[in-house]
Amino acid sequence: MNDKIRIGIVGYGNLGKGARLAIVQNPDMELIAIFTRRNVDSIHVEDKQVKVLNIHMAEEYVDLIDVMLLCGGSAVDLPIQGPYFASMYNTVDSYDNHGNISEYFRDMDKASKLKGKTSTICIGWDPGLFSMNRILFESILPKGESYTFWGPGLSQGHSDAIRRVVGVKDGVQYTIPIKDALEAIRRGKTPQLTTGEKHIRKCYVVEEEGADKDKILKEIKSMPNYFLDYDTEVIFISEKELKENHSQMLHGGFVIRCGSTGREYDNNHLMEFSLKLDNNPEFTSSILLAYARATYKLNKEGHVGAKTVFDIPLKYLSNRTSVDLCKSLL
Amino acid sequence: MNDKIRIGIVGYGNLGKGARLAIVQNPDMELIAIFTRRNVDSIHVEDKQVKVLNIHMAEEYVDLIDVMLLCGGSAVDLPIQGPYFASMYNTVDSYDNHGNISEYFRDMDKASKLKGKTSTICIGWDPGLFSMNRILFESILPKGESYTFWGPGLSQGHSDAIRRVVGVKDGVQYTIPIKDALEAIRRGKTPQLTTGEKHIRKCYVVEEEGADKDKILKEIKSMPNYFLDYDTEVIFISEKELKENHSQMLHGGFVIRCGSTGREYDNNHLMEFSLKLDNNPEFTSSILLAYARATYKLNKEGHVGAKTVFDIPLKYLSNRTSVDLCKSLL
Repeated sequence: MNDKIRIGIVGYGNLGKGARLAIVQNPDMELIAIFTRRNVDSIHVEDKQVKVLNIHMAEEYVDLIDVMLLCGGSAVDLPIQGPYFASMYNTVDSYDNHGNISEYFRDMDKASKLKGKTSTICIGWDPGLFSMNRILFESILPKGESYTFWGPGLSQGHSDAIRRVVGVKDGVQYTIPIKDALEAIRRGKTPQLTTGEKHIRKCYVVEEEGADKDKILKEIKSMPNYFLDYDTEVIFISEKELKENHSQMLHGGFVIRCGSTGREYDNNHLMEFSLKLDNNPEFTSSILLAYARATYKLNKEGHVGAKTVFDIPLKYLSNRTSVDLCKSLL
Repeated sequence: MNDKIRIGIVGYGNLGKGARLAIVQNPDMELIAIFTRRNVDSIHVEDKQVKVLNIHMAEEYVDLIDVMLLCGGSAVDLPIQGPYFASMYNTVDSYDNHGNISEYFRDMDKASKLKGKTSTICIGWDPGLFSMNRILFESILPKGESYTFWGPGLSQGHSDAIRRVVGVKDGVQYTIPIKDALEAIRRGKTPQLTTGEKHIRKCYVVEEEGADKDKILKEIKSMPNYFLDYDTEVIFISEKELKENHSQMLHGGFVIRCGSTGREYDNNHLMEFSLKLDNNPEFTSSILLAYARATYKLNKEGHVGAKTVFDIPLKYLSNRTSVDLCKSLL
């Protein structure tokens, strides 16, 4: 008898690839199929046993897959794929378009409830693990300030922005927390800081042959939202160097709260959560898998509709029994 | 109309005092009364408005208090007070006797279900916040090792043990994480370490006049469970020095997981949660308060019986609305 949680993956980019590897780490799960919009033959999966199917085949698998991991992007894929799959499957996704979360929640909630499914949205480390610490920290120490720092790490969105600049052949951007700001907070200061006062942006750029470096530099540094309000450093390097030294997907970050208690609020407390990741998509997909387990269990217990990290008790993430949890981890 | 959460405190030691101060920080709560086993007149509360009552009066307040914070100790108080109060009130406690948690859970579950109450047990930072991170970290990175470090901080239990040694007038003990062990783990090593390989114990001792210091030193260092398996340092100081420099209740600690993902498990990830606390009981009671809010809301929604941090969704801890949570913290 096979009582593993049967997983499907929709979209086979970095996140989908990470998810495939993460399933191997979880003995209570198995991968049933990968669904793609691309030509099926163009997808090369190391493990030849893995079924790769066109996304239109998804409707055929409703009885064979327990949870579908939606590994597409938030800008274009998820607003459409999300509600579509949520109406057929339990789903987990990493929707991260902060401004539209309420709307996305509503759409997913409606779609999943229609067929008694459970859809867990906005899973990853931010939104996700960082959000959990923000709510936890603030609820425990109402008098205080919370800070979120991203990096040091490679930002996909900012790297894309660099690559759109005329004369740029390739490039990456690192977001780096400003050490002095981090240390001041750890010493118990509670300054008011903008994102630009907490982070610097370091760009490694490969220019097209004969391109005007000064112009590229100026254009990057003056880009609104992305670089204008930051201390931005631009370093020109060769294509070879970029490939050799900047192809890893390192990332990480910190959530810190500095709060106080006592008669005169003279006792200070520091709560800190941090991540240091060798590979951002592999780590993020590992979070998706833990929440796939939760989603499966929640649905079995009749908890349908859209859920976020705020709604799901931690016991659902674990493969251990309640008794074992109490004994080993509490 | 008053729709604040009405809180009662049972036991007015360090934790109970911290709880009284923490209630002031939470505008959605109010303190109704403190219940004590001691002579009521011996309890001095700064705020003269606060009602101090004998613990036998508790039965009279079932309609006036929403959540009772049980601020007694785990060894003697809670095994008796816990089930007694859980059969009348929603409760939150900081039970931390690891070996007996399953039994305590059963007793509290039974007592609270009898009258449709909710009892949240084992709340604090360990068990509590640290437990939450242990389950979260392990569920996300199944391949890896988790480490818990306590301190630097004053350990109440170990200080008590010192004070029981013949010839010791007074004393305190600090638990201090071994930096090299901490740093090795942060660099991605996954050593197997005993508690004694992770911590040193530093004791500040005031001897009775004419006591044999060598004998005290030997007796402390050879005390099984408490000091024998540790690198233990004993420093003799004056009573004045002890009072001046060692009366703060500092504490803290770390939960760290070093895990790996990828085809060859060659991508390493570090997850870390840490606390640095000026005042341990004030911080712990602040956690109790957040879980008092959760307990109140859970009970209102019909979730009765015993609960731990593994059972309670984070949204219940917060005073914010669901919409606000999504917008501000997710």
